Amino acid sequence: MKGCTVFFGTSPAIISSASVGGKMEGDGPMSACFDKINEDPFFSCETFEQGESKLLKETVLKALEKGSLATGSIDVMFGGDLLDQCVGTTYGVRELDIPFLGIYGACSTVTEGVLLASLFIDGGYAKRALAVTSSHFCAAERQYRFPLNYGGQRTPTSQYTATAAGALVVSAERLPPYVRAATVGRIVDMGVKDAANMGAAMAPAAYTSIKQFFEDTELKPEMFDAIVTGDLGKVGSRVLCELFSRDGIDLTTLHRDCGTMLYSFEEQDVHAGGSGAGCAASMLCGYFIPRLRSGEFRNILFAATGALLNPTVSAQGESIPAISHAVWISSDPGTAPDIRFSRKER
Amino acid sequence: MKGCTVFFGTSPAIISSASVGGKMEGDGPMSACFDKINEDPFFSCETFEQGESKLLKETVLKALEKGSLATGSIDVMFGGDLLDQCVGTTYGVRELDIPFLGIYGACSTVTEGVLLASLFIDGGYAKRALAVTSSHFCAAERQYRFPLNYGGQRTPTSQYTATAAGALVVSAERLPPYVRAATVGRIVDMGVKDAANMGAAMAPAAYTSIKQFFEDTELKPEMFDAIVTGDLGKVGSRVLCELFSRDGIDLTTLHRDCGTMLYSFEEQDVHAGGSGAGCAASMLCGYFIPRLRSGEFRNILFAATGALLNPTVSAQGESIPAISHAVWISSDPGTAPDIRFSRKER
Repeated sequence: MKGCTVFFGTSPAIISSASVGGKMEGDGPMSACFDKINEDPFFSCETFEQGESKLLKETVLKALEKGSLATGSIDVMFGGDLLDQCVGTTYGVRELDIPFLGIYGACSTVTEGVLLASLFIDGGYAKRALAVTSSHFCAAERQYRFPLNYGGQRTPTSQYTATAAGALVVSAERLPPYVRAATVGRIVDMGVKDAANMGAAMAPAAYTSIKQFFEDTELKPEMFDAIVTGDLGKVGSRVLCELFSRDGIDLTTLHRDCGTMLYSFEEQDVHAGGSGAGCAASMLCGYFIPRLRSGEFRNILFAATGALLNPTVSAQGESIPAISHAVWISSDPGTAPDIRFSRKER
Repeated sequence: MKGCTVFFGTSPAIISSASVGGKMEGDGPMSACFDKINEDPFFSCETFEQGESKLLKETVLKALEKGSLATGSIDVMFGGDLLDQCVGTTYGVRELDIPFLGIYGACSTVTEGVLLASLFIDGGYAKRALAVTSSHFCAAERQYRFPLNYGGQRTPTSQYTATAAGALVVSAERLPPYVRAATVGRIVDMGVKDAANMGAAMAPAAYTSIKQFFEDTELKPEMFDAIVTGDLGKVGSRVLCELFSRDGIDLTTLHRDCGTMLYSFEEQDVHAGGSGAGCAASMLCGYFIPRLRSGEFRNILFAATGALLNPTVSAQGESIPAISHAVWISSDPGTAPDIRFSRKER
């Protein structure tokens, strides 16, 4: 087994980031991390899908505004979401006239976006690159599970899809935080078939990529203020820590999970936690990046996690493949490594 | 309006490519371009979706075999398809254990894959990168339109989704053809709402990217043996040539469209032509790349085109945004330009 970790010798900077959320996100413990809360799930549109597109577009525009950037200053944008054919993104950004590359990694999308945006900057293929992703509870429920009106009961291991989006701009300018390296994930499928337990399906993918990152970089976990996963929730987080404990590594003190951060388990009915591409993206853009910029955190490893199922193949009895890409973000640009990528045999 | 054209100074090489098709593709005029034809739409699986995954996997393995490459020699793979959440790809490659980045560009996916794979090689972030995409007539019909059993009538402007896949491997080795530059497309939505006329919806996106490519590179169309679009079909090809003729450019002699090449209009019931992510991918991998390698063609501009709709938002009355990324592939590695990207005001 081999992974692939790329090193960004020039340490591209995340010069701006923004997050926008819905009512549930505004009612939760992370409300201060959002630049804007929109309590209307339709976002003043006619359908939930249009609402998600508007949410995503608002987030892109907010990230540009916070960085005092014109849309024309963005050379390339990476985006995707959970809706079929990524329409949350494509309809959201279609009027912005920014060169666009569509990506799909389910809830891991934000790290894929950071990775590719950083690579364009580090390689000199763009001056400014933007990454964005979103999710929307109501649009996701009716696409993946049941229409809300059906009032279906949710199982204890299920997670609550965040109505949230995160956008960030990467550039060669010198402004913390900096993207130092990233591990491209491999698809891992351990045979979990329960689409209402995606934390368990995704945890082995996060474990694989985080482990690969440390092997390829030869860095130690202790160097990091936090090792963050996307949306494993309570169940998946427990599985992840258990997998590491078998290797003799206690991850419990360093590990944070955006799915367990976003909502209050006591006061909000979110079962195993938050999920959705917007969960990790909004926490990265609204919680971690500001703390890396201020110096409160010096280094984080951010490994968003995606479950690559769809309802059709789940109904056909398929198991759930998952993927996680891990990105090292630092308050310090560091010194350039002498290699651009590393692959170690396991 | 600004585009973004990236230049690959090291001219990454496409060292291997493969294409696999279904019965309709084997019965058409391009049958010799396929490494393998599988007449069973299920590909010996139980469902069409599983069949598409097997088709895609077979194509990846064939591209590796033709290049005498082990799966472990691929540092990163880019892939996506038309199925919801790109399951054709993720389920197809999940057992290969290759670092994977999911991309979504509908039928433009193959050029996004070539672009990103070339960028990883040119920037030194990988030694070998693979790009793959597929489509499957039966899986696409029931997802985008009606189940086949319904026997729905198709309109004259509709296109026939190819059951086909194309895969290629990019490397820093010296073996023609070479990827020289690529224009990242912008999303173009001219308000076309007829989901059975995607050629018309996509033609303006192809026009925009091809025009941008020539402005950014300052090359002349006459330098190219062919300017190829993905799957505009008869209707979209006419629109594209009409748009260029308004600029005083006669594209008719240079223009080729994979959607009009793949099938016989006289003998096969394909209405306006072929479509699907596998249409452009199989023609690139099975027709154009071998001719560039042999020197029959010296330069092509390959602009696959994607319609970014989904059935839900189409039913909500939305128009169809489209995108096209254009890649310059040459039998000659050329000399490195002194810039890595170009953006010109229009």
